[in-house]
Amino acid sequence: MQQHRVRAKTDCSFQRLNAQEPAYRFEAEAGVTEMWDDNSQEFQCAGVQAIRRTIEPQGLVLPYYTNTPKLIYVIQGRGVLGTVFPGCAETYETELRNPQELRGSDRRRGGEQSSVDRHQKVRRFSPGDVLAVPAGVTIWAYNDGKEPIVTISLADNGNDINQLDLNHRNFFLAGNPSSSRLSSGQGRRQEQHFQSRRQQQHGFRGQSGEHNNILNGFDEEILSEIYNLDTETIRNNIQGQNDDRGSIVFAPSLELMLPEYDEEEQYQRPGQRMQRRERSQSGRPNGLEETFCTMKLRQNIGHSIRADVYSPRGGRISTANSQTLPILSYLQLSAEKGVLYDNAIMAPYWVVNAHAMIYVTRGRARIQVVGNRGECVFDDEVREGQILVVPQNFVVIKKATNEGFEWVSFKTNDNAMNSQLAGRLSTLKSMPIEVLMNSYQMSREDASSLKYGRQEATLLSPSTTYSSRG
Amino acid sequence: MQQHRVRAKTDCSFQRLNAQEPAYRFEAEAGVTEMWDDNSQEFQCAGVQAIRRTIEPQGLVLPYYTNTPKLIYVIQGRGVLGTVFPGCAETYETELRNPQELRGSDRRRGGEQSSVDRHQKVRRFSPGDVLAVPAGVTIWAYNDGKEPIVTISLADNGNDINQLDLNHRNFFLAGNPSSSRLSSGQGRRQEQHFQSRRQQQHGFRGQSGEHNNILNGFDEEILSEIYNLDTETIRNNIQGQNDDRGSIVFAPSLELMLPEYDEEEQYQRPGQRMQRRERSQSGRPNGLEETFCTMKLRQNIGHSIRADVYSPRGGRISTANSQTLPILSYLQLSAEKGVLYDNAIMAPYWVVNAHAMIYVTRGRARIQVVGNRGECVFDDEVREGQILVVPQNFVVIKKATNEGFEWVSFKTNDNAMNSQLAGRLSTLKSMPIEVLMNSYQMSREDASSLKYGRQEATLLSPSTTYSSRG
Amino acid sequence: MQQHRVRAKTDCSFQRLNAQEPAYRFEAEAGVTEMWDDNSQEFQCAGVQAIRRTIEPQGLVLPYYTNTPKLIYVIQGRGVLGTVFPGCAETYETELRNPQELRGSDRRRGGEQSSVDRHQKVRRFSPGDVLAVPAGVTIWAYNDGKEPIVTISLADNGNDINQLDLNHRNFFLAGNPSSSRLSSGQGRRQEQHFQSRRQQQHGFRGQSGEHNNILNGFDEEILSEIYNLDTETIRNNIQGQNDDRGSIVFAPSLELMLPEYDEEEQYQRPGQRMQRRERSQSGRPNGLEETFCTMKLRQNIGHSIRADVYSPRGGRISTANSQTLPILSYLQLSAEKGVLYDNAIMAPYWVVNAHAMIYVTRGRARIQVVGNRGECVFDDEVREGQILVVPQNFVVIKKATNEGFEWVSFKTNDNAMNSQLAGRLSTLKSMPIEVLMNSYQMSREDASSLKYGRQEATLLSPSTTYSSRG
Repeated sequence: MQQHRVRAKTDCSFQRLNAQEPAYRFEAEAGVTEMWDDNSQEFQCAGVQAIRRTIEPQGLVLPYYTNTPKLIYVIQGRGVLGTVFPGCAETYETELRNPQELRGSDRRRGGEQSSVDRHQKVRRFSPGDVLAVPAGVTIWAYNDGKEPIVTISLADNGNDINQLDLNHRNFFLAGNPSSSRLSSGQGRRQEQHFQSRRQQQHGFRGQSGEHNNILNGFDEEILSEIYNLDTETIRNNIQGQNDDRGSIVFAPSLELMLPEYDEEEQYQRPGQRMQRRERSQSGRPNGLEETFCTMKLRQNIGHSIRADVYSPRGGRISTANSQTLPILSYLQLSAEKGVLYDNAIMAPYWVVNAHAMIYVTRGRARIQVVGNRGECVFDDEVREGQILVVPQNFVVIKKATNEGFEWVSFKTNDNAMNSQLAGRLSTLKSMPIEVLMNSYQMSREDASSLKYGRQEATLLSPSTTYSSRG
Repeated sequence: MQQHRVRAKTDCSFQRLNAQEPAYRFEAEAGVTEMWDDNSQEFQCAGVQAIRRTIEPQGLVLPYYTNTPKLIYVIQGRGVLGTVFPGCAETYETELRNPQELRGSDRRRGGEQSSVDRHQKVRRFSPGDVLAVPAGVTIWAYNDGKEPIVTISLADNGNDINQLDLNHRNFFLAGNPSSSRLSSGQGRRQEQHFQSRRQQQHGFRGQSGEHNNILNGFDEEILSEIYNLDTETIRNNIQGQNDDRGSIVFAPSLELMLPEYDEEEQYQRPGQRMQRRERSQSGRPNGLEETFCTMKLRQNIGHSIRADVYSPRGGRISTANSQTLPILSYLQLSAEKGVLYDNAIMAPYWVVNAHAMIYVTRGRARIQVVGNRGECVFDDEVREGQILVVPQNFVVIKKATNEGFEWVSFKTNDNAMNSQLAGRLSTLKSMPIEVLMNSYQMSREDASSLKYGRQEATLLSPSTTYSSRG
Repeated sequence: MQQHRVRAKTDCSFQRLNAQEPAYRFEAEAGVTEMWDDNSQEFQCAGVQAIRRTIEPQGLVLPYYTNTPKLIYVIQGRGVLGTVFPGCAETYETELRNPQELRGSDRRRGGEQSSVDRHQKVRRFSPGDVLAVPAGVTIWAYNDGKEPIVTISLADNGNDINQLDLNHRNFFLAGNPSSSRLSSGQGRRQEQHFQSRRQQQHGFRGQSGEHNNILNGFDEEILSEIYNLDTETIRNNIQGQNDDRGSIVFAPSLELMLPEYDEEEQYQRPGQRMQRRERSQSGRPNGLEETFCTMKLRQNIGHSIRADVYSPRGGRISTANSQTLPILSYLQLSAEKGVLYDNAIMAPYWVVNAHAMIYVTRGRARIQVVGNRGECVFDDEVREGQILVVPQNFVVIKKATNEGFEWVSFKTNDNAMNSQLAGRLSTLKSMPIEVLMNSYQMSREDASSLKYGRQEATLLSPSTTYSSRG
């Protein structure tokens, strides 16, 4: 079951990184999908793709799977995530409101499905949740809340589990996502249909876009035989040939009888009432990967109460890795949610064993990134909605502006480790003072300041001015 | 000891797949080796090579190893597979019939080898067997049966254990395989010696062909010193310089005293007499990879009695994966043998985590394959002897003709998982009916038919005509 | 925690290998760093880099980390290796000799650091040691002995843990390594500064060289705020802007109070006095990768007493692999130290699952290497200081000259396995004699000589002349 990552051995020798906004925008009936340009050098080096999705209330993201594992971070909104793992049982039941709707042949097929509908486990999500989605597994999502859902996702094209090339591919099971309207991102809105646009625009990778659903490619007669539906229904409904709703559709009538938001190992809201009705004695045997069936796919890293690092004047960091969310050992990915208070600094660090994709969720910060030549490859202010990809081992300093800074960082290792250059956990603090004195040609006093000067762990409070020592 | 797969990140964005027959044919004294063109786009995308071998009765495949792990499926015939794992003991003994044949220096070297010959375990194989061969491990094979042996193999060039490039390399330990006669496949037989041909033909990869044995490359004086044989014997016999038998040679005198066909965990033939004489107290210590020494390398997936999926009007499927044949977790490969009865349909599916190489062993079927854009990349009838490579996540429908259809499918993951789009195990069946209704813009009735219409698991019986529902 | 290797799928189809000497030479104040040309075909195929370092007495290698795991073999000299694993506690204490040196602000920061200095574990090393260094982990080294230290290292650029491209990158934490003087290797000494040279010389990869330290890339004001040091100190000391000492500096005053050379699981010198003072009750929690904190990083493979293979007239071989040094399972590397006595021969072998990089530590040998086509790709005498890279599965014979031959071989698998073609462990010995007779068209007598002719395991004693059998 263990899977391990393959990194494309592309050129990671850039002169400069860029904070980037989405390059493509697909507008559907009930939401918008935005994608970053995965042809840009940092995305190519890291082998990743970024997707931001907005789902309006009563919007349904049509079922699809991708060739890459994904981490989804919920920035805003509440909804439901459905997953279909091959071989897992339909453990959720819904009583049908109008059983008489089931007539004819279906009814005759037996009493089992006459009064209840069964399906696999679905999960509620809310802001601050990280959702882990394995490659090749079908998902759908529904906004049953009052406000739009906004998510940001990492798709890890370079992951070992993806045996295809480095293109990110969505395989839709329904609808006609190619009917989404494509406009380029970054403010300019040239609304054109994707299909025509794709021919013009070589910069956009055809693989990553929104296309027809996969059933559209099969012969309608064979599908008719398989599904026992007439060919007109196959064409119009199954193959979605005249569907113009795009990949996110309005589903006002969609009613899911679900348990309430389930905090699992997370903090318990008092009085929470669990309504889950699981059907443990499933009639159908579990598949090979039985463990997936009941695996936790979600962890909240947004709530301050669960911070892993906290400093009252610095900020906080929460992490989802394979220690806290075991499925991540299969995805080989992890995520971190960080908050820097006004003017605070995150101590200079490098990620030992992963690339990082930083998405700004709120505020602004000055970020500097340095490569192995000691050259600065990024020095700029980043703001909400921008992404900065930081290659493995490159060194980063984040300094919040006076409005503070919040981010989510996705990392291409399930147990990403940071190594710091300042603070109580500093690499410098782990070396003998004599080594520092000789390395930096310093007095013992200065070396001692370097080594012991900061007692904060990771997030450093702002110091008003440089205070001369004495 | 776990090894994990590396996929070449080549371009998998083809417009069309092709069912392919062998491109190269090497004729040897006692058999034929045929290879598919691994430069074709599907083989390149999947990083695999296909080899079909015919071994005449009394034919011996000269000992060799390759830089890639292999799965061999026995289509026809019975024989013996020898393997040499470094560090494993010679646990098989054969009494020499004429000990007096051993004279002179050899006899003087001590009594140990005077009356018995010792060697590592050898294994009998018969039709329907899958044989797992790790990379770098020497194998040889002998046909001690009455009819020709025919095997089809997958060589997984893209496997992690192969640290060289994506070329498939055979390293022969004996003979002169380059004396095999090369003719191009697909019916045309232009018989020419490989050596001259290779210069003309750029389409054929020099690495994959049949070459001199590896001992041929060393200095004959050094070999003479090492083996204590005169240089003429080194040249003629060890280096095989005048050997014109090719890679499969007649060995009529070869007599192996072996146990009968060993069913291991498989079904027992009544009255079977086990003649194995194992020598557990070997004088030589086992190597680091002791587990390999006694590991099962063979599983029969041909017998109907062991089917994992069975439908009386649909057909059956048997699988060899790392659950049933643990060495496959090291090879990161699996195989499946399938039978579709006349006009039956295998429900549309995608392989979640692997490429598949489908070889047709009998009959014909119409196969359709659809990619992520909803485009049909293959729609044709395939017949016995053809190979269709299906990239990971691409969706497949197989429909047998009225003569039925049988195939063996090799997959580049030791625990390949299928996800279906119809039948009792369908992905659609795992989603709430309301999601189907809204995704496909269907009535509850049609959605219910879509979800519950087929009670068969995977292999669907033919439906005579479309029956309108009522 | 398991990591698995990715091999670049580059072209490994060369006509010829070359024994190589260093291509680049960086001269620093207290030592020299030499690098091989990793653009050459064998290094590219194997995805490795070789580095030889000479550290003068009292020389300190400035702290740095790399994007690749490394194996370091100590050819000569004794010294100290410091490592910094993120999250591990400072378990070593040194009493300061002159606590009064600590004045002012540092002293005021509390009594904890006033009289002792704490740092992470450091390790003594001596000739014959292999040192394992994970990627991204900071190391430094100090020569506190009387003679120069000479080490040879493998940096495994193709390793899975390196998610960047195949360039080897050093990230220095201090000093100004770019002030090292670059001269090309191989005897020619064109002394020029690296910076100017780099522009001229396209053959040299900019990534692998010696550059500014990483703190040099950050804004001095921000560093001043972080470290509470004035900007002049930041520029001159932390950023090392005027430092001209290069990457290895004289540190005559550096005094480390350390335990004596620690034999760990190795042989005990009688009367050895362990002075280690470990602080098990650390105030700081261990990090995620707690096991690293106390893991053994060193194994001696130089002492004859620990040989794994020994033949009184042939020589000896010692191996460090993940069985003997468990951290190697994380690095996916192993090493072997070999000695061939005068005119002895190492039986022909191939490495089943790894590339090998052979560095000659003493003497000379004739080496032959043969590829899968039976073609000889190397046949030459190699001498001290040369490197021969042997691709996976290629077959090798080593024959010492009359001055004997010693080497260290680094392999790109933590459990590299050899398969031999002669000697008591020969592949040929594991096959039935009838298979050999038919493969090599030999009499039973010759086949028996081939199979049983050599009783030595791996290292074959020289045979004066070919002795005709009779």
